[in-house]
Amino acid sequence: MTFQRSSGDGGPPGPADRPRRADTPVVGMAGGGQLARMTQQAAIALGVSLRVLAGTPDDSAAKVVSDVRVGDDRSHHDLLAFAKGCDVVTFDHEHVPAPHILALQETGVPCRPDAAALAHAQDKLYMRRKLSGLGFPCPAYAPVPETSPVEFLEEFGREHGRPLVLKATRGGYDGKGVWIVDEPSGQVERLLAAGVGLMVEEHVPFRRELAALVARSPYGQGAAYPVVETVQEGGICTEVIAPAPGLPEDLAAEAQNLALRISDELDVVGLLAVELFETGDGLLVNELAMRPHNSGHWTIDGARTSQFEQHLRAVLDLPLGSTEPTAPYTVMANVLGGDDPDVYSRYFHVMAHDPAVKVHMYGKESRPGRKIGHVTALGSDLADVRARARHAADYLRWGTKMGARAPRRGGTGD
Amino acid sequence: MTFQRSSGDGGPPGPADRPRRADTPVVGMAGGGQLARMTQQAAIALGVSLRVLAGTPDDSAAKVVSDVRVGDDRSHHDLLAFAKGCDVVTFDHEHVPAPHILALQETGVPCRPDAAALAHAQDKLYMRRKLSGLGFPCPAYAPVPETSPVEFLEEFGREHGRPLVLKATRGGYDGKGVWIVDEPSGQVERLLAAGVGLMVEEHVPFRRELAALVARSPYGQGAAYPVVETVQEGGICTEVIAPAPGLPEDLAAEAQNLALRISDELDVVGLLAVELFETGDGLLVNELAMRPHNSGHWTIDGARTSQFEQHLRAVLDLPLGSTEPTAPYTVMANVLGGDDPDVYSRYFHVMAHDPAVKVHMYGKESRPGRKIGHVTALGSDLADVRARARHAADYLRWGTKMGARAPRRGGTGD
Repeated sequence: MTFQRSSGDGGPPGPADRPRRADTPVVGMAGGGQLARMTQQAAIALGVSLRVLAGTPDDSAAKVVSDVRVGDDRSHHDLLAFAKGCDVVTFDHEHVPAPHILALQETGVPCRPDAAALAHAQDKLYMRRKLSGLGFPCPAYAPVPETSPVEFLEEFGREHGRPLVLKATRGGYDGKGVWIVDEPSGQVERLLAAGVGLMVEEHVPFRRELAALVARSPYGQGAAYPVVETVQEGGICTEVIAPAPGLPEDLAAEAQNLALRISDELDVVGLLAVELFETGDGLLVNELAMRPHNSGHWTIDGARTSQFEQHLRAVLDLPLGSTEPTAPYTVMANVLGGDDPDVYSRYFHVMAHDPAVKVHMYGKESRPGRKIGHVTALGSDLADVRARARHAADYLRWGTKMGARAPRRGGTGD
Repeated sequence: MTFQRSSGDGGPPGPADRPRRADTPVVGMAGGGQLARMTQQAAIALGVSLRVLAGTPDDSAAKVVSDVRVGDDRSHHDLLAFAKGCDVVTFDHEHVPAPHILALQETGVPCRPDAAALAHAQDKLYMRRKLSGLGFPCPAYAPVPETSPVEFLEEFGREHGRPLVLKATRGGYDGKGVWIVDEPSGQVERLLAAGVGLMVEEHVPFRRELAALVARSPYGQGAAYPVVETVQEGGICTEVIAPAPGLPEDLAAEAQNLALRISDELDVVGLLAVELFETGDGLLVNELAMRPHNSGHWTIDGARTSQFEQHLRAVLDLPLGSTEPTAPYTVMANVLGGDDPDVYSRYFHVMAHDPAVKVHMYGKESRPGRKIGHVTALGSDLADVRARARHAADYLRWGTKMGARAPRRGGTGD
């Protein structure tokens, strides 16, 4: 765990600064997905009230929160109505338009992170320019011009190699809005003509992907979780190993410090997840997220303070919690929807097979490829822990189709 | 952890026995206190829906559950309406009248535990007769007759010593309904005349109080948590130490087996907490509770499966979870309300002082002596862990009044 005190927007926290109150604060979270859902577990423990702005009453979080406002979190009107009575507003995604956040802030409700910080998680080109300007290690990148984009990309490829990584500057997630292309084509012109801002990056020959998760409070306190390895399939995170196996201590510290410095430079309040490439030449920053992040789900079971509690503590300007791990290794595996929607029946096998595996389901309808939950396994034998997490996630996904793949404990992964 | 397979009300669990479903079950919990509130955290993870029957919309659980029915859980009508659509009904207290539970069961909604089992937690005399009849070790006891009760008690005292422990057979909790008396008086006659059923027990010269928490599923699977020491002040549990320090292994196993056998003999489904006296001559059963219990709050942070998740798994006939502890010692201290209702302001000190202490508040208005939350500390140095838990609980209770008692880490308790 790393704590640091740096520049912040407020004075030292403490009862003296605050109005006396017999009630606890209301935290508004725009977005009703699984991040808001799991934040509710932490809010219950802290005794703070979570209010969620959800698109429908069937949203993942809306099913488990008593104070739900149904509305459009990209609507100025709905956001203002939602925020009235909240002590602070935060987000379970990056898609709330900046002007709306600024308008909210003008009504006196603090938004954490604020619009200026969040811009770096909303616009990948803006983030690259900022981080490169500050000297943080990033892949080579360039905006794709509207004039002669294909020629520009060919030139970029000659300089930085192929394939190229094309990214929509805004709106992507889980691999959406990212294209790995060998040969730039008319697709690029069509995207630009449709108003999609594009940037290009070099394809980094990374060893593996890491993520550094930190929290920062308005007071400027920072806390860093152990650096994890993330495993992606088709742009979707499928597995997170905490801590990243075999990561040299100095590189782990470098990743934590990098994330803490970014959170400070960008004036982030709340969580910041920094997705990193580990290369032969060191670390490169891939993406940023300013909210609880898939790479931090392991902390619910595997760290003294879950990322969801930490996010609440940060946006409330409470002292941050310990990020100490509770086991030598924690592995989180995402549960993706399979063809059979009857996931609940598969609990029986998974729980009987491994009484210690932790199941977290999001109350979302199962659709093929959709993230509908995650499982966590903990222990000291990494191969065993990975196999247990993988087995549970695969079984919940595939269920009876796995019949031929006999459940096996302590194997090398099946 | 002890698992056992014994007689149960059903066949082996598994997908084959169950209707296929794309949704997850609805668990109804009668009572909207902190036990239902903390059950919601577990329900969120399992992706099952928790419905709560709460007395008011401001009840502890009603504040954090989306599916709240406001009503009287001792009303036949309200219970029936509440249970409609639930897959199973369970309880966060013992006060639902047995005839109502029987009526619910007749409508086809399983109640777990059922009326027959719950009777032992509702009526202390009935429990004593049952357990004594089965040969479980209990203190000497007798019902107090309506005729010449004082003379009867004097005779009981001559045989079993004084003081006497007088108990209302029904409706007590947290020391209410229990009186330690040296000299029986007219109070006894007044209670009997008011229709309060009374029993008398010998005052056991115990070394300390222990609690054995087990779960049992309809299938008959049992799981036992480590045996804990409970510290009571004025009849209210203030501290729980897991595991009970220095408890010989054979005595711990005896306590676990005793609780598992009681759960089996009484056909309990769900959790069973057995409060025990440790005496020079072995263990004696004090009280029973058939629900998540204060002596098990430590499991949220200190065991692989929280008691709340375990209760849900048991009443849903899911395989039970691992009861392995996550740290060598976990200490839970209850937060009682003090004179100052502004508890939230005191979070700042508590969290800054000890980033690893876990705060659990119940969303209840602070009133002197009321259980409004608990804190948990974990570690390997018991004196340190106890001091940390005690400091956090005391500070949240007393707040600024503790100014003169300087916060100190790693002390022997302050």
